[in-house]
Amino acid sequence: MDTDLTNGLANVTDHLRRPGPLTGVRVVDFTENMSGPLATMMLGDQGADVIKVEPPDGDILRSLGTHVGGLSAFFANLNRSKRSVGLDLRAEKAATVVAALVDGADVVVHNFRPAAASRLGIDAAALTPKRPRLIHVSIVGFGSVGPYAGRPAYDHVIQALAGFAALQTVGEGSPTLVRQGIIDKVTAYHVAQAVTAALLERTRTGLGQSIEVSMLDVAIAALWPDGMMNHTILAPDEIRTPISRSFRVTPTADGFIAFVTLTARQQEQFLKAVGFGDAKRATGELMRQGAQVIATRPTQEVVDLLSSYDVPVAPVVGLESLHENDQVQANDAIDEFLHPYLGPVRQANPGVRFADRRAGDLRPAAKLGDHNTEVLTELGFEDAVIRDLTSSGVLAVDRAATA
Amino acid sequence: MDTDLTNGLANVTDHLRRPGPLTGVRVVDFTENMSGPLATMMLGDQGADVIKVEPPDGDILRSLGTHVGGLSAFFANLNRSKRSVGLDLRAEKAATVVAALVDGADVVVHNFRPAAASRLGIDAAALTPKRPRLIHVSIVGFGSVGPYAGRPAYDHVIQALAGFAALQTVGEGSPTLVRQGIIDKVTAYHVAQAVTAALLERTRTGLGQSIEVSMLDVAIAALWPDGMMNHTILAPDEIRTPISRSFRVTPTADGFIAFVTLTARQQEQFLKAVGFGDAKRATGELMRQGAQVIATRPTQEVVDLLSSYDVPVAPVVGLESLHENDQVQANDAIDEFLHPYLGPVRQANPGVRFADRRAGDLRPAAKLGDHNTEVLTELGFEDAVIRDLTSSGVLAVDRAATA
Repeated sequence: MDTDLTNGLANVTDHLRRPGPLTGVRVVDFTENMSGPLATMMLGDQGADVIKVEPPDGDILRSLGTHVGGLSAFFANLNRSKRSVGLDLRAEKAATVVAALVDGADVVVHNFRPAAASRLGIDAAALTPKRPRLIHVSIVGFGSVGPYAGRPAYDHVIQALAGFAALQTVGEGSPTLVRQGIIDKVTAYHVAQAVTAALLERTRTGLGQSIEVSMLDVAIAALWPDGMMNHTILAPDEIRTPISRSFRVTPTADGFIAFVTLTARQQEQFLKAVGFGDAKRATGELMRQGAQVIATRPTQEVVDLLSSYDVPVAPVVGLESLHENDQVQANDAIDEFLHPYLGPVRQANPGVRFADRRAGDLRPAAKLGDHNTEVLTELGFEDAVIRDLTSSGVLAVDRAATA
Repeated sequence: MDTDLTNGLANVTDHLRRPGPLTGVRVVDFTENMSGPLATMMLGDQGADVIKVEPPDGDILRSLGTHVGGLSAFFANLNRSKRSVGLDLRAEKAATVVAALVDGADVVVHNFRPAAASRLGIDAAALTPKRPRLIHVSIVGFGSVGPYAGRPAYDHVIQALAGFAALQTVGEGSPTLVRQGIIDKVTAYHVAQAVTAALLERTRTGLGQSIEVSMLDVAIAALWPDGMMNHTILAPDEIRTPISRSFRVTPTADGFIAFVTLTARQQEQFLKAVGFGDAKRATGELMRQGAQVIATRPTQEVVDLLSSYDVPVAPVVGLESLHENDQVQANDAIDEFLHPYLGPVRQANPGVRFADRRAGDLRPAAKLGDHNTEVLTELGFEDAVIRDLTSSGVLAVDRAATA
């Protein structure tokens, strides 16, 4: 073996043996729906101990969409790598549990509207003054001031307000939305990074901090680099076509492909591939004729052809066949495993895999209150107290589980 | 003043005084295009010293799209908070500069295809063996193995392969793409978080690591929670409509709005708002009639009406008027300032604002090689050596700047 290869193998083995980078971090998570839960799932996937505190009815997503036994796929896809504690925050006796949870936490996250957070006693003003090392994160929809402050926020409406819908028009017909909770997800990534940055800062300063993340702010920051490229410079030398126009698919004989010819070389290579190699330069008309050639040939043939000319290309893959795609399989991007409550499931592996963690190796989504006793015992509550909190309904569990 | 308010103010002041959470971290960034540069801009916005190393022609995005003096808005929106060093990595003399840069770095990021990275000597095998504390990140399009490994990747083609295009169909007509580089951006957020997590881990273990991030893996992980909610459970009890169907806009008399009626209460409130408060339950027909009522009224009136019933709603705001929106202004989400090269510009503030950093307060995007001498002097190169590297073209600067 040469030295490089040996080093490479040593690194791989070392990597596999490591615990996640967020090992030793405890997150107490009061969030529901998508942005908060996805953020804390990423932290949990990376080794943090995430305690999800849910109201007696559970996170609203538990019962939303396709499910087994009342546990939805939507919820399970956002709440891996967590423990669940069901807690009625409105009950007077909940206060001691909240205090114990927060005292043991490095990070607290919630996404209640400001008034509700304050009423439940989990806002920064209630939790941070006596805990200088605590990192407190509040996720809000629109902002804490302004005409929309306190209004209910969903991904759809933030997409409308933040320009995502307008960008999906680009001159033709009606605006449309991105048909997934893209801003919730982008917010989640920002929250996960911000929490990790605050933890890093704390190793240097010894201090935590309170962070407010607005979905609207995150959406506008996310839209900007390419989406606002023609609304950035107020007095440009030259205005060119925005890149949004290049985002389109092309039909083949049996499906669709996406390919990219943004550079002169890509255009030349594309024209060679479709038999117009003699052309002196790539005109719009020639590119259209090239697309007509593609429309007569099967997808796989076109993908192979354009790839052989180094033109960026891929087939449009359907949701139902994503797991069968050769490249997706080569990446081991999707894991199929037996979920304790849902039976056989497919889930995407974490986008970045530290220590090669696979979805099936991680703690699967729990039922409401699965870890009430475990967590409260760790926090020092006595059995009798836990029993009292349970019988009085302060601690809640899944209704089916108690039936 | 009551105690809560005093604490609140103290926290704000404390927050404003702080340097960014990534202060003290040096990132050497060999990336071009969008995913890598956006990731390192986030780290730079948070206080990291990011040295962007560019080829003699500069990052390909410098000349793409609307511009002033050859510096594009697209580039400027992705390369704030960095210093620029122009370096011809193919030149023999570049090796000492690369070694010095890497020796002084906590993090090295590149997004060359694997073969190119190896040829240029900045792959993990070349850089990490003698530097156990280094965090090395390689961003790849499809993956390092498999049929697409080494093929050129753009956002468009990853959207096609990863199910983003298929999700934009949902049963009607052709698939379409999200009309922005959404996977590049989602990849950037994953990279920024992964780097920050690796830095945090290093404070515990003393060890860096090599991280490979595949855009395809990230895209599939991002799609999954909601986009694949009906392709997660292999034997569901009940199949329900996927949430993707709810992502649509509704016309008003003078524009479009997005509103959400996912819960029974939201449907009831919506029907009350549009004058069907007597209805026993929300049928599809009634909801359609409600939409017809909306179509006859002006946008602002509909937004105020539905908001007063606590129905999530917002107008579809055009890209050209985003900065004028009341809520966007209340959030101070967009900063207008004088860029040294571009003149007056608008840029989004960072999505999460540590220490209240605004776009205009951050280091603006540089011209190619603006910091050649500054950085090499810091690294200990003597003036004569820097002059020699410059005259021999190993160090490169913006052509207009030398003309």
